[in-house]
Amino acid sequence: MPELRKDPILSRWVIISPERGKRPIDFPAAKKKFRGGFCPFCPGNESKTPPEVLALRSTGIEPNSPGWSLRVVPNRYPALMVEGELVREGEGMYDRISGIGAHEVIIETPDHNQTYTSMTNRAVENIFRAFQERIRDLKQDNRFKYFMIFKNHGESAGASLEHSHSQLIALPIVPKRVMEEMQGAHYHFNYKERCIFCDIIRQEMKVGQQERVVCHNDSFVALAPFASRFPFEVWILPLRHVHHFENMQDNDVGELAGLFQEIMQRLEGLLDNPDYNFILHNAPVGDAAREYYHWHLEIFPKLTHVAGFEWGSGFYINPTPPEMAAQLLRDFDLGDYLQDQATYASVGTQ
Amino acid sequence: MPELRKDPILSRWVIISPERGKRPIDFPAAKKKFRGGFCPFCPGNESKTPPEVLALRSTGIEPNSPGWSLRVVPNRYPALMVEGELVREGEGMYDRISGIGAHEVIIETPDHNQTYTSMTNRAVENIFRAFQERIRDLKQDNRFKYFMIFKNHGESAGASLEHSHSQLIALPIVPKRVMEEMQGAHYHFNYKERCIFCDIIRQEMKVGQQERVVCHNDSFVALAPFASRFPFEVWILPLRHVHHFENMQDNDVGELAGLFQEIMQRLEGLLDNPDYNFILHNAPVGDAAREYYHWHLEIFPKLTHVAGFEWGSGFYINPTPPEMAAQLLRDFDLGDYLQDQATYASVGTQ
Repeated sequence: MPELRKDPILSRWVIISPERGKRPIDFPAAKKKFRGGFCPFCPGNESKTPPEVLALRSTGIEPNSPGWSLRVVPNRYPALMVEGELVREGEGMYDRISGIGAHEVIIETPDHNQTYTSMTNRAVENIFRAFQERIRDLKQDNRFKYFMIFKNHGESAGASLEHSHSQLIALPIVPKRVMEEMQGAHYHFNYKERCIFCDIIRQEMKVGQQERVVCHNDSFVALAPFASRFPFEVWILPLRHVHHFENMQDNDVGELAGLFQEIMQRLEGLLDNPDYNFILHNAPVGDAAREYYHWHLEIFPKLTHVAGFEWGSGFYINPTPPEMAAQLLRDFDLGDYLQDQATYASVGTQ
Repeated sequence: MPELRKDPILSRWVIISPERGKRPIDFPAAKKKFRGGFCPFCPGNESKTPPEVLALRSTGIEPNSPGWSLRVVPNRYPALMVEGELVREGEGMYDRISGIGAHEVIIETPDHNQTYTSMTNRAVENIFRAFQERIRDLKQDNRFKYFMIFKNHGESAGASLEHSHSQLIALPIVPKRVMEEMQGAHYHFNYKERCIFCDIIRQEMKVGQQERVVCHNDSFVALAPFASRFPFEVWILPLRHVHHFENMQDNDVGELAGLFQEIMQRLEGLLDNPDYNFILHNAPVGDAAREYYHWHLEIFPKLTHVAGFEWGSGFYINPTPPEMAAQLLRDFDLGDYLQDQATYASVGTQ
């Protein structure tokens, strides 16, 4: 059974998950290249995953059989377990909680070779709708306090399978980073009675000063944050204040998909298809933070190797000023790039 | 000129350092293997580094010439600049400080192929003494509030040169992780009037319950922390309360070097020479935290790839329980391993 443990000094919770590995002998495997051949996420292999909890498929087709365009399944190697009771206990000065939670995989396309940049805009929309639907469903279980949605793309970003997928972890606690965001945003709100994220957006969108804005549409903005930790870090924020991602209006989902896909294409073209992570920052379950929390997506291309130092120190050195990153992303000739990609694709299928 | 920028939500400072890597074309280089051939840290190449600020060498030998056993030099590509005034300014809701600081490299041995595990215990002692001496010297500059000492060993841990070295960064601010440790420790102290690190040590060292202790001597303990973020994470703490590393008693330096070298040998043998980082966690300049902060070393072997997710979320999933890590490290047959290594070495030099 996995468990959550609290660092007594930093009050940071960590999942200790003995079911997932990992003796010394298990680690060299993590360094291996993606194994070619069998893919449990491809159509026809539905029996190799736990039964689906959500799928987009034409009516009349059996669950867990081919014919779907998106599938959500429990993770076969979950970091947390759905079954069981939430038990809190101490061990001297230490605190632990039983590792109750959900861990699901969103299989984003039936096509093994599709990515966000090559799939249709409608397919990207459906991914965001699936995130919303799974959160709404899991919210009914009152053991869960937070839903973390993220993607590891590429081996160096932590992906173990190539087929495009993202993950959802439902947690019985709120992660430290989100708690800190809430504290910072709450402090600002108490002082100014305004949402700090709304204030950031207002400052960044000022006409003639959009130096960190990469692009925007009527509902969303993509920008390189002022204190970016990583080269080409990009955040996407809704222009209007929305605390919970799952409360986003349905017509905004299309706007989000459009802007998100454009950013992914610009990053891919400019940085030569980098590995990356994205993390959805959402308000915790409940209405406590509704006035001051503002959901957003954080995207990090994985360009440097200096992970351990940053992990250990909480201190970041970023060699690319966000203003330079934003300008290079803005100036990148996307039309030209997409035309080239389309040419390669049509040659490839001849 | 580099600058420090503050994240307005999290109050986290980041160094934005345009003098270092930067444009997309510069990043593939970071992925390359170590370049063989020329090494600026080897004896004879002293002119390829900035002039030394400290060296261990026999009397009568010219500075910046061969004959040294340890050298400290300014980093040729510093993240921060020593020259200049500390200027604080705002930009709307954002805050920045000019990037004033020192960035030094400790070249730990003249021998390109030596590591902590193969050098003499005396050589390891001298490295720790050099850390102390550089901190004491830099403390005279009252612009500096914190000294961060760390090592990146191996490419995947962020090292760009193979020759054994560590780094010191003097900062005009206290990094967020250290601030948080201080807050957590202060809270505990206010409540119990005891140092939280001393309490952890007492609990871990209880006879018959040393399940997370790897080894200890009269002055130090090495343990796998209760809420370890990473597989085989190890902390080394002084058994007696000492807030500042540079205040450590001289005879304790030998004890530290001995225990540290044993841990590095156990990690190397058990995990097949992993890349790793270590970070010295020290109290900030001044006496404010003297009652409740307790310096220690944190060591992280780099075994997994899931960096971006942890970076972005502040949430960690650790597949190796610290009790298992401690037991495997304890049970590893170090005598046997060192004998094998000695045999290889003597065969290699025949």
